Amino acid sequence: MVKRIVDLRSDTVTKPTETMRAAMEGAEVGDDVLEHDPTAFHLESEMAKIMGKEAGLFVPSGTMANLISVLVHCESRGSEVILGHNSHIHIYENGGISTLGGVHPRTVKNNDDGTMDIDLIEAAIRDPKEEIVFPTTRLICLENTHCNHGGRCLSVEYTDRVGQITKKHGLKLHIDGARIFNASVALGVPVDRLVQAADSVSVCLSKGLGAPVGSVIVGSNSFIAKARRLRKTLGGGMRQIGILCAAALVALQENLPKLESDHKKARLLADGLNKIQGLRVCTSSVETNIIYVEIEESSGTTAIKLCKDLEEYGILLKQTGLSRLRVVLHHQISESDVQFALSCFQKAVNGVQNENGN
Amino acid sequence: MVKRIVDLRSDTVTKPTETMRAAMEGAEVGDDVLEHDPTAFHLESEMAKIMGKEAGLFVPSGTMANLISVLVHCESRGSEVILGHNSHIHIYENGGISTLGGVHPRTVKNNDDGTMDIDLIEAAIRDPKEEIVFPTTRLICLENTHCNHGGRCLSVEYTDRVGQITKKHGLKLHIDGARIFNASVALGVPVDRLVQAADSVSVCLSKGLGAPVGSVIVGSNSFIAKARRLRKTLGGGMRQIGILCAAALVALQENLPKLESDHKKARLLADGLNKIQGLRVCTSSVETNIIYVEIEESSGTTAIKLCKDLEEYGILLKQTGLSRLRVVLHHQISESDVQFALSCFQKAVNGVQNENGN
Amino acid sequence: MVKRIVDLRSDTVTKPTETMRAAMEGAEVGDDVLEHDPTAFHLESEMAKIMGKEAGLFVPSGTMANLISVLVHCESRGSEVILGHNSHIHIYENGGISTLGGVHPRTVKNNDDGTMDIDLIEAAIRDPKEEIVFPTTRLICLENTHCNHGGRCLSVEYTDRVGQITKKHGLKLHIDGARIFNASVALGVPVDRLVQAADSVSVCLSKGLGAPVGSVIVGSNSFIAKARRLRKTLGGGMRQIGILCAAALVALQENLPKLESDHKKARLLADGLNKIQGLRVCTSSVETNIIYVEIEESSGTTAIKLCKDLEEYGILLKQTGLSRLRVVLHHQISESDVQFALSCFQKAVNGVQNENGN
Amino acid sequence: MVKRIVDLRSDTVTKPTETMRAAMEGAEVGDDVLEHDPTAFHLESEMAKIMGKEAGLFVPSGTMANLISVLVHCESRGSEVILGHNSHIHIYENGGISTLGGVHPRTVKNNDDGTMDIDLIEAAIRDPKEEIVFPTTRLICLENTHCNHGGRCLSVEYTDRVGQITKKHGLKLHIDGARIFNASVALGVPVDRLVQAADSVSVCLSKGLGAPVGSVIVGSNSFIAKARRLRKTLGGGMRQIGILCAAALVALQENLPKLESDHKKARLLADGLNKIQGLRVCTSSVETNIIYVEIEESSGTTAIKLCKDLEEYGILLKQTGLSRLRVVLHHQISESDVQFALSCFQKAVNGVQNENGN
Repeated sequence: MVKRIVDLRSDTVTKPTETMRAAMEGAEVGDDVLEHDPTAFHLESEMAKIMGKEAGLFVPSGTMANLISVLVHCESRGSEVILGHNSHIHIYENGGISTLGGVHPRTVKNNDDGTMDIDLIEAAIRDPKEEIVFPTTRLICLENTHCNHGGRCLSVEYTDRVGQITKKHGLKLHIDGARIFNASVALGVPVDRLVQAADSVSVCLSKGLGAPVGSVIVGSNSFIAKARRLRKTLGGGMRQIGILCAAALVALQENLPKLESDHKKARLLADGLNKIQGLRVCTSSVETNIIYVEIEESSGTTAIKLCKDLEEYGILLKQTGLSRLRVVLHHQISESDVQFALSCFQKAVNGVQNENGN
Repeated sequence: MVKRIVDLRSDTVTKPTETMRAAMEGAEVGDDVLEHDPTAFHLESEMAKIMGKEAGLFVPSGTMANLISVLVHCESRGSEVILGHNSHIHIYENGGISTLGGVHPRTVKNNDDGTMDIDLIEAAIRDPKEEIVFPTTRLICLENTHCNHGGRCLSVEYTDRVGQITKKHGLKLHIDGARIFNASVALGVPVDRLVQAADSVSVCLSKGLGAPVGSVIVGSNSFIAKARRLRKTLGGGMRQIGILCAAALVALQENLPKLESDHKKARLLADGLNKIQGLRVCTSSVETNIIYVEIEESSGTTAIKLCKDLEEYGILLKQTGLSRLRVVLHHQISESDVQFALSCFQKAVNGVQNENGN
Repeated sequence: MVKRIVDLRSDTVTKPTETMRAAMEGAEVGDDVLEHDPTAFHLESEMAKIMGKEAGLFVPSGTMANLISVLVHCESRGSEVILGHNSHIHIYENGGISTLGGVHPRTVKNNDDGTMDIDLIEAAIRDPKEEIVFPTTRLICLENTHCNHGGRCLSVEYTDRVGQITKKHGLKLHIDGARIFNASVALGVPVDRLVQAADSVSVCLSKGLGAPVGSVIVGSNSFIAKARRLRKTLGGGMRQIGILCAAALVALQENLPKLESDHKKARLLADGLNKIQGLRVCTSSVETNIIYVEIEESSGTTAIKLCKDLEEYGILLKQTGLSRLRVVLHHQISESDVQFALSCFQKAVNGVQNENGN
Repeated sequence: MVKRIVDLRSDTVTKPTETMRAAMEGAEVGDDVLEHDPTAFHLESEMAKIMGKEAGLFVPSGTMANLISVLVHCESRGSEVILGHNSHIHIYENGGISTLGGVHPRTVKNNDDGTMDIDLIEAAIRDPKEEIVFPTTRLICLENTHCNHGGRCLSVEYTDRVGQITKKHGLKLHIDGARIFNASVALGVPVDRLVQAADSVSVCLSKGLGAPVGSVIVGSNSFIAKARRLRKTLGGGMRQIGILCAAALVALQENLPKLESDHKKARLLADGLNKIQGLRVCTSSVETNIIYVEIEESSGTTAIKLCKDLEEYGILLKQTGLSRLRVVLHHQISESDVQFALSCFQKAVNGVQNENGN
């Protein structure tokens, strides 16, 4: 008997479904460097339409999607980007925008809900005309949903206000929308409306959507033309990518509708975890498919130990602090998996408490 | 009736075969960022073994394979790389090693056969101890077969001699081996012997091998560990890449043995073209699957016109100069396609001559 | 009659004294690129001795001193530096460490006294072994005195503690010591003791010391050897710099002893300003030669207006916020200048209040 | 008695004259970062006028002058510059344009006279619209006189033709004019006419002109505004530089007229050396103040040995190859020094020949 595994480490761990595999097998393909691969072209157009932008570009990863976007908006030497101190670009992308692109990051504090205060953003904008020692602010980045802040959503109103600021100062707005569909579903706002203020958006295909590989960048035609060239420079220009894009097209059709259920399962799990003595989840901040679990001292365990104990029961998740775990739901986690996970959590925490004689 | 198309633009235009598609459909996969995708791991190990190196790394493209290799060998600011003035890295990769990596290229003239004179290479090496104004040479790059020089091969002896120089001066040797298997087959030398002197080799899966996407870098364990991290920085870290790697494993098995036949078809085509008045191919330099066709003035046509005329007959190829065309053979071109192409060339050139009253 | 000007914009505005000018006229010089200029060599050795380090290097500016220091410590691609969110390097040096050097900055909040919390520093350190998506922390930067935080001093104890952390984690410590002598004097601590924990220090010659041009970097012999090469790359290698170094040697002798008096004049001015209704100086934070003046709403004026009004009276200073002015004392401001400035402030604020009918 | 030293290593070894020293002592100065230093402003305006351009900028060195010029013209990521394979920028400036600026160099062969073939230049220009894998050519650099090619001059006609090409292709033209005044004098062409086609020129003050420190960049107002900002980023913004600029103004007045005599002394020395058996100078290529001396095998000596032997006689020069020496004349070498040098050469070569029994 195969051991039951419930993999809650990330929504990137999903396996391609049967329909995706069939689509990949049958995909029409071409050399996407010499000309457009037809299936890639289909996916890119489709995603652009969904997001309300002129054009799209398939890239190998979310990291490349953000890297290209920042670098295209900051194409001149001496550019500065304003972004959240806890943003994925700043923390989890190897500092690539500086390392490879020479872009200087200026961080603004992320609030608990993933926003940055509007007046702090505006105060951080630097006009080189003021001081010869200033870089030039060219871009503001938002992240929706915010990975490091529990998958919380930025509202249309907030996004629009940041958009107004970028316009007022002649800047660009990029949204790291790796999980933008989760935000759209959770907020009940059409995704094109949600990103209306953005000049570019990166969307991940291999997170909630469950495709095996890739992200799509959307923006204006001229932005995407520059992005396509930079993708080649970075080595992200691939040949017969219709294979991968076929799976992504299936993902858009089949898995997009399942996001709502992912959120429901997240709340179910969060509520259950909250009932376990020693664990705490701020349920009001579980807006989409990510849960951060705080492990109280009274639990008698630690993040590292709990992670290990749960792994033995077949529950995989990620420690993100000394007393904090991250749990991510996705379409290959069933309600029954959630119940099973809860029972394992219960056993793991209780077991420790029994050992400790609590 | 579908028009017969013979696509000779590049060996990157091949479509995945039925066996590859089936392999992709059934591939075992995992999240290659969080852990190793099992099929990717299989491919990487296999390729490392074939090339006689410790480890391998799957990357989205040959451009990224070379970019990562150069940047890992030149990880300190102020590095210089010696490479051929006509090399693919210098001419066809957007200057990425400088643009993204700040590496300074020092070119040495490529001879007709793709070699650089050994003494010119050695004279170009710069020791910063000599002059405070010198960058530090850290790497020499060879290209085998040489794309811009008719797909000609570097011999084991030549490669070994360059390897001796790199060792003598404490440098590294990288081989852009996008078509290294073509060289191995043409020279009749095992590929691991051919690249023995190299610290790293990039091998393309989507050229002669006919896989849909990707390249593999091979080198020492510590080199590949750094390459893996840099791949993430560049945005080349992808998720369930077992899909693509499964096709590549099939390619290694099924298409590697077909390279010899590609070379035979190239010679056949070259000989045929040489018989057409007004066209000239230096047949002695057709060592692998690439042919450069010179269009003599007496032909009455030009590269651009001939290219266009042939396209109407269904023959696709690439103009690479005012009077030069590039033709590339691959496993999806049959001997009958070669004969058909020859007849179209004949018609296209003759037609022009007739028009011109020649 | 020449109008009396009291220039309080910065301590960089001083003019070379007669002794400096005489020293420059008579300086022994050589070509500092081909070999050591003898006077530069003298200054560099002298400064190294004073700072307790092995070697020194004259550079054209404080910006270059910091840029070189950060880049030498972060010589490999993918480096991250931890520094204060209000530090001079982060705010006033054009983002050069990223723009030119590709170094990724990770900021930690500067407290009012210019320190960063030790535990926040330690939490910001990133070990790439933990996560493939992390850059590698290689350097921590302190600033003493802290320009943006009122010229406040970091204590020996604080500096030593940060030094312990860098050692524990295998990092380097750079001190932006543009005004390190002010700190040494204010704290009553020998400057070599104050920077003992640092791997490198940049010291400005043209601020409090009053030399016309330049800074000196000090550090280990091997660090300075790399710095010398990078100075050449940046274009900071100059020829007969003995001219400038001769003035700096005079500055060390004549002006270093005057710093204490600069601090006294700053306190005098601060106390006087505090007595003017509508102005407020946090006198306890005036530790050296910099004063930040808050303009209260009750004053009836604004920073921009007060700045302009004072300029008409011959008092020059710098607006650094909507309601904040910066005042900097130096050896060419006499106590009588301070009294004159105070009377002008009084008139300027009163005048406005009278206009407004306050 | 002090040993007689004749320093022919470079024209950068000159010491400031009495008049320069007096000018430095009395120079009017200001803080050139906060506002314009008045003497710097005078020098910059004067040089701009002489060169027929709108504005000028004093920088610490010729390396920074070229670095800033290339980087301002190539301000967008993905820029390529075309320059001579033996040019000073490519060989003797640490690869800074790539290392710090990410600019990709494309070299064209320098002919013996320092020119590059016009058709080779034009063939090297790359339009990114042609191929997605091309960087964008944005700049062509010439060098006049050409340091590595014996100080030979580019004619007005040649320069104008390159200028036409840059205009035709929408590129910029930069002239590394470290010794442009030598070219102007040798050709008998006003310097502003000679550089008329250039968008920017770097002029060295501390070579033939004999000032202690610095270069000036000239170009359009908007170019110089960008250059000023980049100078700050690089750390080349200095404070009371009127000191150095005062010496440069004297240099322009007093030493510019002496260049003709430097050239005459060079020819004198070249003719004399040519008469020494075993030495050979191509006298027809001695157009300005630089001489390359070939040491024939028959001489019985080598460059390294001759250099050392001459040093003992007090003659300093630079070995630039196994059998090649470089000799540079300047205003502090008298005709008597030239005769003395010749006699030492004679002794050094003869001595060796006697030792060897030749």
